[in-house]
Amino acid sequence: MRMFRNDYSEGAAPEVLQALIDTNEEQCPGYTEGDIHCECARALIRKAVGLPDAAVEFCVGGTSVNLIAVTGMLRDWEGVIATPLAHIATHETGAVAAAGRTILLTDDTDGFVSPDAAERIWERQCAGGRHMTKPALIYIADTTEIGGVWSHERFFALADWADAHDIPIYVDGARLASALEARDADLALEDIAKRAAAFTLGGTKDGLLFGEALVFTDERLKEAFPYVQKERGGLMAKGRLLGVQFERAFTPDADGDLPWLRYARQANACAERLFEGLSGLGFEPYGGHDSNQLFFYVTEAEELAFRGACGAETISVLPDGRRIIRFVTSWATKMEDADELSAFASTLRSRG
Amino acid sequence: MRMFRNDYSEGAAPEVLQALIDTNEEQCPGYTEGDIHCECARALIRKAVGLPDAAVEFCVGGTSVNLIAVTGMLRDWEGVIATPLAHIATHETGAVAAAGRTILLTDDTDGFVSPDAAERIWERQCAGGRHMTKPALIYIADTTEIGGVWSHERFFALADWADAHDIPIYVDGARLASALEARDADLALEDIAKRAAAFTLGGTKDGLLFGEALVFTDERLKEAFPYVQKERGGLMAKGRLLGVQFERAFTPDADGDLPWLRYARQANACAERLFEGLSGLGFEPYGGHDSNQLFFYVTEAEELAFRGACGAETISVLPDGRRIIRFVTSWATKMEDADELSAFASTLRSRG
Amino acid sequence: MRMFRNDYSEGAAPEVLQALIDTNEEQCPGYTEGDIHCECARALIRKAVGLPDAAVEFCVGGTSVNLIAVTGMLRDWEGVIATPLAHIATHETGAVAAAGRTILLTDDTDGFVSPDAAERIWERQCAGGRHMTKPALIYIADTTEIGGVWSHERFFALADWADAHDIPIYVDGARLASALEARDADLALEDIAKRAAAFTLGGTKDGLLFGEALVFTDERLKEAFPYVQKERGGLMAKGRLLGVQFERAFTPDADGDLPWLRYARQANACAERLFEGLSGLGFEPYGGHDSNQLFFYVTEAEELAFRGACGAETISVLPDGRRIIRFVTSWATKMEDADELSAFASTLRSRG
Amino acid sequence: MRMFRNDYSEGAAPEVLQALIDTNEEQCPGYTEGDIHCECARALIRKAVGLPDAAVEFCVGGTSVNLIAVTGMLRDWEGVIATPLAHIATHETGAVAAAGRTILLTDDTDGFVSPDAAERIWERQCAGGRHMTKPALIYIADTTEIGGVWSHERFFALADWADAHDIPIYVDGARLASALEARDADLALEDIAKRAAAFTLGGTKDGLLFGEALVFTDERLKEAFPYVQKERGGLMAKGRLLGVQFERAFTPDADGDLPWLRYARQANACAERLFEGLSGLGFEPYGGHDSNQLFFYVTEAEELAFRGACGAETISVLPDGRRIIRFVTSWATKMEDADELSAFASTLRSRG
Repeated sequence: MRMFRNDYSEGAAPEVLQALIDTNEEQCPGYTEGDIHCECARALIRKAVGLPDAAVEFCVGGTSVNLIAVTGMLRDWEGVIATPLAHIATHETGAVAAAGRTILLTDDTDGFVSPDAAERIWERQCAGGRHMTKPALIYIADTTEIGGVWSHERFFALADWADAHDIPIYVDGARLASALEARDADLALEDIAKRAAAFTLGGTKDGLLFGEALVFTDERLKEAFPYVQKERGGLMAKGRLLGVQFERAFTPDADGDLPWLRYARQANACAERLFEGLSGLGFEPYGGHDSNQLFFYVTEAEELAFRGACGAETISVLPDGRRIIRFVTSWATKMEDADELSAFASTLRSRG
Repeated sequence: MRMFRNDYSEGAAPEVLQALIDTNEEQCPGYTEGDIHCECARALIRKAVGLPDAAVEFCVGGTSVNLIAVTGMLRDWEGVIATPLAHIATHETGAVAAAGRTILLTDDTDGFVSPDAAERIWERQCAGGRHMTKPALIYIADTTEIGGVWSHERFFALADWADAHDIPIYVDGARLASALEARDADLALEDIAKRAAAFTLGGTKDGLLFGEALVFTDERLKEAFPYVQKERGGLMAKGRLLGVQFERAFTPDADGDLPWLRYARQANACAERLFEGLSGLGFEPYGGHDSNQLFFYVTEAEELAFRGACGAETISVLPDGRRIIRFVTSWATKMEDADELSAFASTLRSRG
Repeated sequence: MRMFRNDYSEGAAPEVLQALIDTNEEQCPGYTEGDIHCECARALIRKAVGLPDAAVEFCVGGTSVNLIAVTGMLRDWEGVIATPLAHIATHETGAVAAAGRTILLTDDTDGFVSPDAAERIWERQCAGGRHMTKPALIYIADTTEIGGVWSHERFFALADWADAHDIPIYVDGARLASALEARDADLALEDIAKRAAAFTLGGTKDGLLFGEALVFTDERLKEAFPYVQKERGGLMAKGRLLGVQFERAFTPDADGDLPWLRYARQANACAERLFEGLSGLGFEPYGGHDSNQLFFYVTEAEELAFRGACGAETISVLPDGRRIIRFVTSWATKMEDADELSAFASTLRSRG
Repeated sequence: MRMFRNDYSEGAAPEVLQALIDTNEEQCPGYTEGDIHCECARALIRKAVGLPDAAVEFCVGGTSVNLIAVTGMLRDWEGVIATPLAHIATHETGAVAAAGRTILLTDDTDGFVSPDAAERIWERQCAGGRHMTKPALIYIADTTEIGGVWSHERFFALADWADAHDIPIYVDGARLASALEARDADLALEDIAKRAAAFTLGGTKDGLLFGEALVFTDERLKEAFPYVQKERGGLMAKGRLLGVQFERAFTPDADGDLPWLRYARQANACAERLFEGLSGLGFEPYGGHDSNQLFFYVTEAEELAFRGACGAETISVLPDGRRIIRFVTSWATKMEDADELSAFASTLRSRG
């Protein structure tokens, strides 16, 4: 059976791989600077996000680009507001602290930074003056770490709060394509581009071999980025590899569709099919289920069975013994893969 | 009226100041190394804590010694478990993160790290393997940031958990003398010395001009300390100033009493008198009230009146408009000062 | 004309690219952990270096792996001995300092760390005790930054000094294959493996799309590596991409040859042909000329001509107006490319 | 015999100590903020340096203030230009690197940063663009680490270079009073204040128990200072201790003289007397000899004799076996102390 472990289990989508093959013998300058593919990718991305003057840079991976962006947008004594579920706070081995910056955790429990929670952080920290880390950045992920999709209303409310406090927003878009293609999604890429000072367009989890594009208008980051990217080990020698891939993923198909969105649409469709299958069998969902990550409560026996069958990862073990496990689809998942997993699941339920 | 703002409002207790005067013209080697006063202070402290082989070092202040100890006891990728109220997490401007280390906040709300909460951190972090900061130190403060005093039972339960997980405990003892002298205190200095890998004996808030003694048996810290203290800017050129003061504060009085404890006893006695006064007037206490810090709920009008009269600091503003304010006593506070403040408070209540 | 700008101008060598194509649709676990390609590459590399128990890990690029290795092998207060030409000291934007470690520069001017110069650093630093950074690692590059190749005698002399002072050696092997294949090379890969605590096998500059393998026996690094790699943003999600490439490059050809060495042999042969051509024309060489980097003194006019023709980079501008420029060959360079450049060079000289 | 080991061997000058005694029982706000003594000291210092609008802050010690100033004036990827003798590069255990910043060493060998050497650094670093640390600060010490005194001509030449490159200068003034009082000194405090973006007025080595005043007009440092000082553990709880001491040292005597300068004048006079004595005996001087540090070449036997007699420190051991040792005078040294040491030295020479 196909694995549902993660969206970075396979290589690249066919046309992206082909682009790498086609350009393999070209000679290009290094470091994403001055090669035609990076330049072309930059132009295509600027157009896609609606920001003709934004900086567009290419990074190797998610933790690396988060580290570079957060370090570049914060002074030593400043901190980034994030939820306790934030990837930078949980699964990046303290990378932000290792770079000398502080994460200020809100009391949000749903993966979304709310203006109210941000305000509580703001008031507490500012009351302490120089004795406390100064809040100076907001980190959000779209989709969130538990599959949530930012709505227009929710995002603009946070952006309004941020503007009122003169704090920039950074959007970790490792799965942004999936968020944009989510059922009922009403937050457009151009909206994010308008209100976030920096955001990423995830490639690793959406059809590329690897790579994240960082789009930003933040002045501090513009000054810092070239140096910080190199200093943190995140500048690729053969930078054109990133350019070639993003160039291809953002080159519109004949019908005007972007491959980068098309990959996510496929992943989402398979996830929806799987969601219908599993919830129809009575499995109780957790978190969001509009994008390419699905979470379900299962028993320990089911956890083991699913892990063995499709590599599903356990997110947490609850005090009552239940588990929350995760299924992830990708550009490479097919509808029949989803059906096969649902069929497998039904054998578990009929047994139980 | 005497200020009740903090226990670092005055200079030094009389005999400590006199010791500085008496030794002012002596010539000593620098950096706390090889001068007779530091050596003598080390010996007196080793005796007082019951650890003949412990390292005893002298630092300039509380944030500095916390920074040195935490940095010295943790590798880059490791983290320190602490409560959300922990001084290192709130009032030290991200010093631990600035030194590249991560603080792992428990869900304890009373200022004490509980074994259950530590276990939750442990399980969550270890489940993530290399993707998560590794818990490798526990930070507690005695007294806690809201005036709590660690009991023998509570401390030993945590120490048992720590031993079972092979994690050392560091005790921030900025107000340790006050904790040891607390009414009903049953945790002895020797107990702390036995179970904590490192702890401080606070001087700044207990009769010295400045200075914290760091006592430790931790092997990592033994290797790191000399370099980290200097590297973090915490090594005093005229190191003997720290030696002279601690030597005096730990030289027993004729009756065997330690001045360092005597100062705290005076502070505690005044705090107890003040507590009786204010609670007798109907002021509702918050947090612990066995040591030299007292916390009360007050109205905004009372907050302003108390701040004006005695410099009381506001700890937090509650959603219902009430405030929690803090009164702190010191070696220099007198019983009549406490009574004067109670008398002032009674005028507020009679007005109300 | 083919560019001689760098050895990371093209994509991957044909068989390496083919391996990526062949495995593109496989599903693998992430993070270089547990996928068959990384495991197979580890086994092949352990065999090639003659260390059955060494740790073999895969990193994205050169600055990243240097940062991880140096950070993992040093405590905060320790420093790495290196020459003023060392890549970590010059072209990595202070990455080592940004991670809180100090570089201790020797007075070597030829790119090789000499035991005498190391001893001077050692004596100076140790005389200062806690007031000075403690030397605890030696960084060398093979080939050096100016094309030098470490001889057996030179390397073993340094290793003897290092052993006597109980300091590990880290070899930056970004161009190690080229060094091993250098004319008259007498230092074997197994020798390096025996005497260095950690070293890299460069892939980016030797036939891979990207990637460096880090081989180590150092105990500190074994403990630190998993966490530090993630914390510094250097852990690849699709880790198998590195495994697939190194697996292919270290899978022996039918005649027992390693592709990884074969690529370097081709690069070196072209460099030798070019060296004969240019030196025959009277161009004065600088630095080493046994590997795939060549350096020559040229006039400003020649600098511009070469830059325009083949992308040669300027290394330095001398007070007398001359330039030192660099030509680099790779697996993709052909003998006729070298000849074409020599022919171009002869037109410059005939003009002059 | 009186020790000539260092200028931080004794406590405080008499009137400074008296000021601490006189104010010991006052209650003041903490952290150098809002207490009358710090405010008064700030006003006196602003007047003394001729900068009515400069920020004046108080730090605990020399390494701490250097760390705070350099960290506050540099971004992560920027570096500070300094000579190889610079205290921050040698005797602060890598504090600058531990805070993530890079030191760029010039090839000056006399302790003074020269415009030519700075220009070489500038050209080399800027040629490397984002791959190299960006020079963004100059560190000098007055007096230098080997007793040199900056002349008006030398300092203004460097300041002109710095202005032309838009790089600020930071002056480590740990022994600035001694420099200002040096024989033939022609660089006034007001001159330094005009051309340096930040400088310190050393107290620890000039009559105070401890403390350095940091004076600055640099905009970056103004923003950063409050946070960085706390974050780096350098903010004193009983801040008024610093205020009281600087207030006293900068309160003019009846004749208009500043005690802070008077202490240095006494130290310098004793050093001059000692210099005459020792050089009259044929001891060969090294480095500068216009301020309170003297350096002489001696034999190993003389080194031991001087160390035993007056605690002189060895600065370096030369390949030919000679030593360079250092004698330091202070406010507490008396002319007869200098004569006693010269008499002792004459016994060495007559023996020899």
